[in-house]
Amino acid sequence: MTQARETVTFKPGEVILYPGVPGPRDRVYRVLEGLVRLEAVDEEGNALTLRLVRPGGYFGEEALAGMERTYFAEAVTEVVAEPLPKEPHPEEIRQVLLSLAQALSESYRRIERLATQRLKNRMAAAILELAETPLAHEEPEGLVLRATHDELAAAVGSVRETVTKVIGELTREGYIRSGYGKIILKDIRGLKELAQSRGDGR
Amino acid sequence: MTQARETVTFKPGEVILYPGVPGPRDRVYRVLEGLVRLEAVDEEGNALTLRLVRPGGYFGEEALAGMERTYFAEAVTEVVAEPLPKEPHPEEIRQVLLSLAQALSESYRRIERLATQRLKNRMAAAILELAETPLAHEEPEGLVLRATHDELAAAVGSVRETVTKVIGELTREGYIRSGYGKIILKDIRGLKELAQSRGDGR
Repeated sequence: MTQARETVTFKPGEVILYPGVPGPRDRVYRVLEGLVRLEAVDEEGNALTLRLVRPGGYFGEEALAGMERTYFAEAVTEVVAEPLPKEPHPEEIRQVLLSLAQALSESYRRIERLATQRLKNRMAAAILELAETPLAHEEPEGLVLRATHDELAAAVGSVRETVTKVIGELTREGYIRSGYGKIILKDIRGLKELAQSRGDGR
Repeated sequence: MTQARETVTFKPGEVILYPGVPGPRDRVYRVLEGLVRLEAVDEEGNALTLRLVRPGGYFGEEALAGMERTYFAEAVTEVVAEPLPKEPHPEEIRQVLLSLAQALSESYRRIERLATQRLKNRMAAAILELAETPLAHEEPEGLVLRATHDELAAAVGSVRETVTKVIGELTREGYIRSGYGKIILKDIRGLKELAQSRGDGR
């Protein structure tokens, strides 16, 4: 288990996996550094984030399961990943299972949010989720998140125009400050409260 | 692998797993017969279906992963399930992994539907999904699905009053006929077309 393994590096914005049936050379990847985003993209080019894969997480499990992949996997930041061997060690299979169990639990949360929360509350949750990824860093003015309105729209399942309105609202209410391609989290406690309440989404 | 194992039978409506941190006696289950529904329930008692587990599928993976469970697992029909041993055989771990990969893929589809489809289109998709479970059976008048409006509301992430309107609409348009606690699928091809288009949900 300690022998050196090949790693692969991807540049920000690079597509790592495309939708389709995995070929014989496709692998499951383990993220060592950076952030990978799995997203569905519709005919009009609107992206929808399905899952964020952080260091320690696995993706591309369709290669093990022989299933069709329905999403793109994209490097959000520079990503260093380790492809698993074609027949992984049982202990590694177990690690993939734990990672998928975690991902499934997160996707349940995403389903709940989409079904029951207003956009503003979902946006607070998305900002907090992204703030725990390599897209965020501490600055003297607070925790700064690098994210465009398009990326935020993909994170909450909406479109940029609507997101711009909601970001304006959150800014006016003092939860965040927003600048070009970045969000500064000013009231993390308030954002957490928003993220935990539903508004009246159904 | 061929030795006899204990199985457990659950009655329709019986709760198999509750939310919370799995205890030392909690197990992962494999469904042998029937249908299990994983659902979140909010403070007002509104249920939201997170996943349907059919024969061959596994649930309760939190027991392997040591993670908190956020949902109820409920027997929809009579269910026969097999609890896995505390330390499953590597081949069985692999089977759980494949089941979770499938579940994750289905949950991505659910996320996409919630983010992008109108309720009517999601309802068509939910009816078709439920029609492939033990809740449906062939009768001379067509494929009959046993489902209350509450269950359909949980399946699409809405509430009964709204669902009743949409079911009325689908009935008037000839896609289904609906009776007390049941739906008769009259135009499966039409339902499939509806399920594949988005309406204008975003």
